[in-house]
Amino acid sequence: MTDAGPQPRTRLADLAAQAGVSTATVSRVLNGKPGVSPAARQAVLEALDLLGYERPERLRMRSQGLVGLIVPELTNPVFPLFAQVVESILAENGYTPLLCAQEAGGTTEDQYVEVLLEHKVDGIIFVSGLHADTSANLERYHALRSQGLPIVLVNGHAPDVDAPSVSCDDVAALDLAFRHLVQLGHRKIGLAIGPDRFVPTRRKVAGFTEAYARHLGENDAEEHIVTTLFTLEGGQVAAGELIDSGHTAIICGSDMMALGAVRAARQRNLAVPDDVSVVGYDDSPLIAFTDPPLTTVRQPVQGMSRSAVSALISEISGQPSPRAEMLFLPELIVRGSTGIARQS
Amino acid sequence: MTDAGPQPRTRLADLAAQAGVSTATVSRVLNGKPGVSPAARQAVLEALDLLGYERPERLRMRSQGLVGLIVPELTNPVFPLFAQVVESILAENGYTPLLCAQEAGGTTEDQYVEVLLEHKVDGIIFVSGLHADTSANLERYHALRSQGLPIVLVNGHAPDVDAPSVSCDDVAALDLAFRHLVQLGHRKIGLAIGPDRFVPTRRKVAGFTEAYARHLGENDAEEHIVTTLFTLEGGQVAAGELIDSGHTAIICGSDMMALGAVRAARQRNLAVPDDVSVVGYDDSPLIAFTDPPLTTVRQPVQGMSRSAVSALISEISGQPSPRAEMLFLPELIVRGSTGIARQS
Repeated sequence: MTDAGPQPRTRLADLAAQAGVSTATVSRVLNGKPGVSPAARQAVLEALDLLGYERPERLRMRSQGLVGLIVPELTNPVFPLFAQVVESILAENGYTPLLCAQEAGGTTEDQYVEVLLEHKVDGIIFVSGLHADTSANLERYHALRSQGLPIVLVNGHAPDVDAPSVSCDDVAALDLAFRHLVQLGHRKIGLAIGPDRFVPTRRKVAGFTEAYARHLGENDAEEHIVTTLFTLEGGQVAAGELIDSGHTAIICGSDMMALGAVRAARQRNLAVPDDVSVVGYDDSPLIAFTDPPLTTVRQPVQGMSRSAVSALISEISGQPSPRAEMLFLPELIVRGSTGIARQS
Repeated sequence: MTDAGPQPRTRLADLAAQAGVSTATVSRVLNGKPGVSPAARQAVLEALDLLGYERPERLRMRSQGLVGLIVPELTNPVFPLFAQVVESILAENGYTPLLCAQEAGGTTEDQYVEVLLEHKVDGIIFVSGLHADTSANLERYHALRSQGLPIVLVNGHAPDVDAPSVSCDDVAALDLAFRHLVQLGHRKIGLAIGPDRFVPTRRKVAGFTEAYARHLGENDAEEHIVTTLFTLEGGQVAAGELIDSGHTAIICGSDMMALGAVRAARQRNLAVPDDVSVVGYDDSPLIAFTDPPLTTVRQPVQGMSRSAVSALISEISGQPSPRAEMLFLPELIVRGSTGIARQS
């Protein structure tokens, strides 16, 4: 393939402005000269891509190898976000990411793994994979490990699997959401959550139950939990039941479920947050723009992805990473879907 | 890998309910018996996946081969949507999709293509790739074709490239949006659009210019067009300029730009749609939930993806598809971001 390359004379200034560096730095990067920080070099590469200039041949890195990234779906926007962040960090490190996105009825995790193995990937990162499903057989991961393939598990710790694992702290997430709602005066708080067989579900249920005891002194939270699917429609059904049984605030297992909860409230002619407060989970990119903007618990996708990639690269280079689960603390992002509880 | 498999006795009813078929049909599918329509079989597979049961060994298909799918990014949610739909249709046809998502500063289209070639993919679908960039060298695609690799180009026709191409009709899209705004009484309508070097940009500019002439009898639309980036921030800047020069309605080149346009209006203490109307483009999944819900032009992603996959599969099987561009008609989805023009 031939390469037109940028025309530095006319484009240097544009690139410098976009990258936030001097034209001299842009010129040094384009000409492969030394004396440029890695951050400045990366900024210039990004500026080239953003402004649509092709990269000069000398700026192309040889790939260190392939890394598979398996995500369960792309409908919940947190998964494209994980994919984008992990891919970007892999690329920074010289690895070429292969993204395997599942879809109900489509290619399964096992089928993707077979293909990745056939194509000799150096490692695989599983985001919310079967490792997070307590009903799934973990033998598939033991088999990968016994072949010596480095893997990293994200969200859904499987202590029996010999691999680094990175998760968002679900118990802390539920406590953050619950405390916020109690401070707003809510006393009947419900949890709308996905299938019970998933590790993150079980942890969120545990966190919710603990929070009920800690903040409201109630020792049996079971009647405040409705289990359904992690989808918008799932959230709508679960929140509907919780609202009908007198709950004024709903904590949801995903932002998609929270959008369903808002819908359930409106179906009943109730306003969010005036009549019902809703808290999401994930803080997916567009969630700040919804009506109302969702209050939600943010997974630290950047930090989690960086740890997952660095653990994998360390394993690939023969240096084992710790097996203890790396738990990341979430943040509560307060927006417009939570408000002071109505006096009843 | 061992396989726990579903336990049909307790799960048949769940699966039947989820799939919308009888328990007898579920049982026939699980046991690999004949007399089941492909649609029912697919519904049962989807139900297994959705409810989280592992597929029995006999339901696993052998992959026909690998197909690469290259998308420019995952931040604009229309690209995860394309990815998900194309992958699902590939999987239905027995192909394993490998999704290559770019990111500024990360792995480039050319690097992904090299990897896909090394791994002997049967074909590649390019969504909004360099083929859509009039400043890019098309030699890269000629080289692929001269190696006999089947490729399909989505959104951004490159007539010189020997490949089927599928696009959304940008001219029709602009006419739909423009006509809607004129019917609402708007006479100063602006276009906020991405870089001019992309084929879809040029076509939207042409459609906008034609629409100005057709609906308002104005023959020079140039002063109503602001060129920027296809991002939220890009939309915000462009819409800000257009609002400041007296435009009451803004047509945007993407939904992300439209969210930026809403922000630009609010920065100026203007309400959408009471003071400024905004029309997006794409109809990405969460866009119906934004504040206000966006009026937007929907790309027929399902139909476009189905045509792209079927053209590719036909090329793979040695039957050339037509080279004439397949143009899909968009639809105007009217929601809450457009309203009657204020009397001035």
